[in-house]
Amino acid sequence: MNQQKPSIPKGTRDFSPKEMAGRNYIFGCIRKIFDLYGYQPIETPAMESLSTLLGKYGEEGDRLIFKILNSGDYLSKVDKTNIENTSSTKLTSVISEKALRYDLTVPFARYVVQHRNDIVFPFKRYQIQPVWRADRPQKGRYREFFQCDADVIGSNSLIYEAELIDIIDRIFGKLNLHVEVKINNRKILYGISEAIDEIDKFMNITIAIDKLEKIGIDKVGEELLLTGIKQESIIKLKRILEFSGNNSQKINHLKDILKNSETGMKGVNEIENVYSYLSCLNIKSEVKLDMTLARGLNYYTGAIIEVISKDVNIGSLCGGGRYDDLTGIFGLDGTSGVGISFGADRIYDVIKQTDSFPDENISPTRIMFVNFGEKEEKYCLTLLQKIRDAGINSEVYPSPVKMKKQMNYANNKNILFVALAGEEEINKGVITLKNMQSGDQITVTPDELLSEIS
Amino acid sequence: MNQQKPSIPKGTRDFSPKEMAGRNYIFGCIRKIFDLYGYQPIETPAMESLSTLLGKYGEEGDRLIFKILNSGDYLSKVDKTNIENTSSTKLTSVISEKALRYDLTVPFARYVVQHRNDIVFPFKRYQIQPVWRADRPQKGRYREFFQCDADVIGSNSLIYEAELIDIIDRIFGKLNLHVEVKINNRKILYGISEAIDEIDKFMNITIAIDKLEKIGIDKVGEELLLTGIKQESIIKLKRILEFSGNNSQKINHLKDILKNSETGMKGVNEIENVYSYLSCLNIKSEVKLDMTLARGLNYYTGAIIEVISKDVNIGSLCGGGRYDDLTGIFGLDGTSGVGISFGADRIYDVIKQTDSFPDENISPTRIMFVNFGEKEEKYCLTLLQKIRDAGINSEVYPSPVKMKKQMNYANNKNILFVALAGEEEINKGVITLKNMQSGDQITVTPDELLSEIS
Repeated sequence: MNQQKPSIPKGTRDFSPKEMAGRNYIFGCIRKIFDLYGYQPIETPAMESLSTLLGKYGEEGDRLIFKILNSGDYLSKVDKTNIENTSSTKLTSVISEKALRYDLTVPFARYVVQHRNDIVFPFKRYQIQPVWRADRPQKGRYREFFQCDADVIGSNSLIYEAELIDIIDRIFGKLNLHVEVKINNRKILYGISEAIDEIDKFMNITIAIDKLEKIGIDKVGEELLLTGIKQESIIKLKRILEFSGNNSQKINHLKDILKNSETGMKGVNEIENVYSYLSCLNIKSEVKLDMTLARGLNYYTGAIIEVISKDVNIGSLCGGGRYDDLTGIFGLDGTSGVGISFGADRIYDVIKQTDSFPDENISPTRIMFVNFGEKEEKYCLTLLQKIRDAGINSEVYPSPVKMKKQMNYANNKNILFVALAGEEEINKGVITLKNMQSGDQITVTPDELLSEIS
Repeated sequence: MNQQKPSIPKGTRDFSPKEMAGRNYIFGCIRKIFDLYGYQPIETPAMESLSTLLGKYGEEGDRLIFKILNSGDYLSKVDKTNIENTSSTKLTSVISEKALRYDLTVPFARYVVQHRNDIVFPFKRYQIQPVWRADRPQKGRYREFFQCDADVIGSNSLIYEAELIDIIDRIFGKLNLHVEVKINNRKILYGISEAIDEIDKFMNITIAIDKLEKIGIDKVGEELLLTGIKQESIIKLKRILEFSGNNSQKINHLKDILKNSETGMKGVNEIENVYSYLSCLNIKSEVKLDMTLARGLNYYTGAIIEVISKDVNIGSLCGGGRYDDLTGIFGLDGTSGVGISFGADRIYDVIKQTDSFPDENISPTRIMFVNFGEKEEKYCLTLLQKIRDAGINSEVYPSPVKMKKQMNYANNKNILFVALAGEEEINKGVITLKNMQSGDQITVTPDELLSEIS
């Protein structure tokens, strides 16, 4: 076999033990809070049928889906008569039937429809798994990254909008991160399109507003002009979006603007109800009504939610919303759902930048026995059994090399205690116990050892 | 969009909340014990460069690797002049650069070499992740399945062989499964080839012995005859393999047979040392020296280990061994390693068939509040905050539908307590608490509620 310089595909990452500790801390927090609210875990396979995914994420999305080559002699099914003129897209449909999941929402919709007879609705599920996108890799954007989704499907109760905001508040609180929660409602955006007399351009308006933070209001206006929206409508739109005030001022303002839009008023009413539920809860984060929040994904039909960090400028840490007909594409109509998705990788970056990882996650091994040779190591093995029976993570250095090397190993692994049991100690029935942080050294009996390190 | 009948690729699975509870129980046990012995978690990406994987698992393995189609216009790189005569294999090398990992061992070797400057050796790592193989799906064999691997790399100490057997013993003990651990040593198999005067046929002998349990000793003999091994050697081999006795009788027997094979005697010596370490530990499982244990994978060079269930006939639940030069293929020579791999899916099946899942894994939600309407649900939300602050998993039914439907939901989710707080209860400042298992109903104050359900 040839020697290869080892590397991994661009946009993917290895996670070292230290990074894993941080990641497990985040996943653990999120999982615990999801459990706390009665959400149940599911998992779906990494591979879905290509047909399940295609057409769900727009044209750009279709391109970014990783396709898997059919196994075996996949070319045998290809009509080769005109193959030199075949396009990649056309060939793909013949030589690839499977693909890696692109998000957790579409596989969840597929799961719900496929298993609908075994599910009691409303179904509260969470899912923490990697997803894959053939995006151009860049800082903070990966081709394999983890999503942590919680969704409820089969109920249109606004209690869940409030519950998901409560979950967001509790998770970021537990992670010691300061965030701002922004909410809006697609029905309000629809109402605004009606109010400015551009109802046919609702999607264009949504997509343009979604870029507002990035490109500014003037550029949004220019973009809308190109889609055929009237200049006077754009002026009206700007005035609406520029309104500032607290939440109840905004709600009153919207009630005024949208009074002739049935859908718009329904959106305002939904927002009011969500705030009314929130008032029963003890939310610590600011929950701000933001009329400029649009969120690009077009399956949302009601509430939309976005969470940004107040400490680090890094984009959204969590987002979500209500979708009234996601399962419709798989044949199950009239099943409303609402969900949120946490981006574990960005959350990791924020915790790291704000230095908020707790110390205790760093090393799992509590005590290491130095290896003095054949006889001594067997003495240690017997002691180790007892320590492990007590549930304390522990190990013995595997060979009697120089003390310095063994100590170096313990240091590098951040092991708190090192036990020395040489011939002398064994004869006396004691162990020398060194605390690597303080440097203190004490002599203990095997029984005392356990309580010292517990 | 077209309606699609939803399904997943054959050989893959969805995991429902109930299945997830069982799986998380298994992964939790394994993870905890790996931690207990000082192993540290890492993770590697699902995708590796195709060149990292090809040639590592034999020709058959190469075929079973799932390849990922290059993104974008992948055909633009293909020389189309003779494309109609191109084979699938040849085209694959041009249109696919990435593949899904086939096991955790090769990615680990790649990881070690790539990050060798950041690693302090011996490096004890564990890794619990899915792997993918384009095998023909059948009962108990999946195209996506989970491996749980623990390896130590950078030490040839036999302490680790004993430690890994200790880990096996502790994990299956914790899972309440009865297993038999079989061990052997590749050097003994080599010695046997020497002893029967067929040293050139060592690999053939290993591969044939590996099938012994499946096809029987006679068929193994026939197969070996076809590879050109002398009839008299086969008779000798049979006699060696058929020897029965306890472990020390076997060791003495081997010492006699292999006395002229330096490698063989080294293997016997290693086995004796491992047993000597094991005698210091409190192993509950039987650890049986089995000269017929071969294990097909050809990178093993020392100890080989296999674990079978004593309760269910299902093949091996765990296997492993020592490999002296796995990292050599990636340019790091002389780094000995030893490891074991648990098959989570088979372990799941055995626990299910022996009914050994503990009850407490089934439902995470402890209490549900019935929804009586707008006013009452807000009262419940306030109470829920306190219950969740105390870390108790809880929820409220999202809408005031018929009691029967709400109770049905609680029943289906195996929720132990249901709380009823209607107008009357709210006025009196109490809650009716129903235990769904016993059917008992009591009236409590909000403060009493917490202690009742804790």
